Amino acid sequence: MIKATGERTIKDLCISELLKLNDDEKKNITTHGTIYNIRDMGDFVFIILRKVNGLIQCVYDKTGSEEEKLALKEENAVRITGDVYDEPRAVNGIEIRVKELTLISCAKNDLPFSINKKRLNIALENEMAIRPVVLRNEHRRSIFKLQEGIVRGFRKYLEMNDFTEIFTPKIVSAGAEGGANIFKLEYFGKKAFLAQSPQFYKQMLIPIYERVFEIGPVFRAEKHDTARHLNEYISVDFEMGFINDFYDIINMETGMLKYTLNYLKDNYEPFIEKINAQIPEITEIPCVKFRDAKEMISKKYNRKIKDPYDLEPEEERLISELFKEEYGSEFVFVTHYPVKKRPFYAMDDPENEKFTLSFDLLFRGMEITTGGQRIHDYDTQVEKMKAKGLNPDDFTSYLMLHKHGCPPHGGLGMGLERFLMKLIDEKNIRSASMFPRDTLRLVP
Amino acid sequence: MIKATGERTIKDLCISELLKLNDDEKKNITTHGTIYNIRDMGDFVFIILRKVNGLIQCVYDKTGSEEEKLALKEENAVRITGDVYDEPRAVNGIEIRVKELTLISCAKNDLPFSINKKRLNIALENEMAIRPVVLRNEHRRSIFKLQEGIVRGFRKYLEMNDFTEIFTPKIVSAGAEGGANIFKLEYFGKKAFLAQSPQFYKQMLIPIYERVFEIGPVFRAEKHDTARHLNEYISVDFEMGFINDFYDIINMETGMLKYTLNYLKDNYEPFIEKINAQIPEITEIPCVKFRDAKEMISKKYNRKIKDPYDLEPEEERLISELFKEEYGSEFVFVTHYPVKKRPFYAMDDPENEKFTLSFDLLFRGMEITTGGQRIHDYDTQVEKMKAKGLNPDDFTSYLMLHKHGCPPHGGLGMGLERFLMKLIDEKNIRSASMFPRDTLRLVP
Repeated sequence: MIKATGERTIKDLCISELLKLNDDEKKNITTHGTIYNIRDMGDFVFIILRKVNGLIQCVYDKTGSEEEKLALKEENAVRITGDVYDEPRAVNGIEIRVKELTLISCAKNDLPFSINKKRLNIALENEMAIRPVVLRNEHRRSIFKLQEGIVRGFRKYLEMNDFTEIFTPKIVSAGAEGGANIFKLEYFGKKAFLAQSPQFYKQMLIPIYERVFEIGPVFRAEKHDTARHLNEYISVDFEMGFINDFYDIINMETGMLKYTLNYLKDNYEPFIEKINAQIPEITEIPCVKFRDAKEMISKKYNRKIKDPYDLEPEEERLISELFKEEYGSEFVFVTHYPVKKRPFYAMDDPENEKFTLSFDLLFRGMEITTGGQRIHDYDTQVEKMKAKGLNPDDFTSYLMLHKHGCPPHGGLGMGLERFLMKLIDEKNIRSASMFPRDTLRLVP
Repeated sequence: MIKATGERTIKDLCISELLKLNDDEKKNITTHGTIYNIRDMGDFVFIILRKVNGLIQCVYDKTGSEEEKLALKEENAVRITGDVYDEPRAVNGIEIRVKELTLISCAKNDLPFSINKKRLNIALENEMAIRPVVLRNEHRRSIFKLQEGIVRGFRKYLEMNDFTEIFTPKIVSAGAEGGANIFKLEYFGKKAFLAQSPQFYKQMLIPIYERVFEIGPVFRAEKHDTARHLNEYISVDFEMGFINDFYDIINMETGMLKYTLNYLKDNYEPFIEKINAQIPEITEIPCVKFRDAKEMISKKYNRKIKDPYDLEPEEERLISELFKEEYGSEFVFVTHYPVKKRPFYAMDDPENEKFTLSFDLLFRGMEITTGGQRIHDYDTQVEKMKAKGLNPDDFTSYLMLHKHGCPPHGGLGMGLERFLMKLIDEKNIRSASMFPRDTLRLVP
């Protein structure tokens, strides 16, 4: 009877192992990969192998069998036996001189588009139609290694700060954010919705775990096709209890961003380089009140304030510009948003009831986070629901939280793709999503 | 202007800090928590405080103000200043003698059910209706700390083994698993579905990252109400390329389980204890062919084989029983499932075309994982689609994978709630989901 032990069964070496070999281990190594690029130099061929964490240069001297030569085709999967040599001109500083090359799997058709260039010259629309193959490009796949790095950094920081990771339902009976932008579905004869955020659940879990976080999909049925909206995106949500005020949340996010940007620099350097991403340095992040920010840019850029209740995209851009110029910060917290534009669970500012104890974080000209303190008192919450035209009876299970005891708390939601998009300086959010969902796009 | 530095702003001590104090730090500490239990001892009161990672005993000598005494109510959130003393009879071996007690937030109503008992006597139906408060119970909240631990263990192991974490769309244009159990939704005038698994996406990403994983929600519109099905659950999915055969996948899972069970023992002991969970020991996991397993239990338990193509729940239970008894293993891989019962992307066994290179993992009587090798050759895949009555034209973007080169690969999907359920020896999967979704339940 076969028994699985959990020991490593695939013996081929990965890049980090290839780089760590000492001299007597460099002979007759075996590795595998996909042929990313072939350059015929006459007497020999450079084979650039795409492996998990980058590329490896291989030299093939053309003395092999006919079969081997036929295997030399882009996107073929191959296994290679050879000797490792230092080669400062090659990526990663080594090359493999091939002794044996085995075709593992053959690409049936040529790619519809050459993907092994440093800069791809392809329109977004066209790219999205063939995304599964375009992602094979080094630049493209590096983008989503950075996405992974961001998520790992966030999680590590939140774990260090005693946040409990939660998984909450995505099929729900009511929207947390209200409004029309909610997807409906049929659920065994009942009407159900796709969660716009884990808001209610993370709040319900505050008396239980005090600090919780979730990184998962949320769904918004926005009908507008813009460069900054997706209909499904990854939301980084955290919520924390026993706060003194909402600056505790702002501070936690600042700490999380500081930690994560350093984590990226320390662990994702090859990918940062490939994208040429400019990772910002954070020492401190300025906080400015919504009203003051409006006035500052109105004055500086000589603009009329059209909508006193919300920031237009152009205003977000200008606030960022101003704070970059005058305070040297690529991040800025805009605080105290008007009650009108915040959901029913937002806590009003006791000093001015037209505003809430809430904030957005702007990064390089765009809102990437929305957060704030929530109402924890039952009567206050019921009253505000009514003021917003909602029926408290529709929120019975959510209101158990307020009814049965709940510390002061608040939290935030960050759009992962927006943060990534700004980090890598892309103009369209679709570039920061592997398989974006917009009003026209369901495939791939 | 206020500037956020990311420094810690909430100074109250958490349990691990309380336990690490040296003698001269034990005076006048401040901490916070929710009052879990109050025991009036006449001259003084024991206040059991619920904190993030457990309970802390506080002693209140009743000499405080009237206001303080009124604050003594279960589920009130309080802040406490006091001195820490060793007290071997208390949980965690310490107690806090309270000097000052401040009410932070008051529970408006009493709980509908007393949640501070060691064993809760409540029917599942009733519990689910008031889940947000029942989760405040120490036993219940420990269950989902274990869930967190499992996920952390899995991720750590997969990261060590060079898996890239991915996020794939949950709104999709076609189901990966086929069949009728798929949720439909209206998507801007188009028909869309909720993803039954990330199958297509993780395969598409094999030529790009070689090894990928995702831990996220999947949706199954199963109409049957059973103790082992949920309509939304967390699927732990991984997929790996350049495999020699599907035992590489089996070995990777074995390694992941070994690592994770040890990780739980090392890091989640207090929660394991609270649930009295029996964490199994893995040295190796036996693998048995589907056909052989059927015969073994037919012989041993004198049963007729009714359905030769699938395992009934009772058969899963008996196979587990047999392997526990005869091989001392609580896990068993059942391999080579019939083609009839496996999806179109499963690779057939070249040695017997009625069977596939696939497996299930049984744990304590129940299937918790389904996996196998996938077809990577284009023509083979197209042919099998047709044999299964599918139209290859409906899978154009998925088939880019096979058309443009893809190494041999395979992977698996594990139901997180099922694994957790068996680990903590619960009879109903709803106990292993914070807010379960079943045919009748959308709230909370």
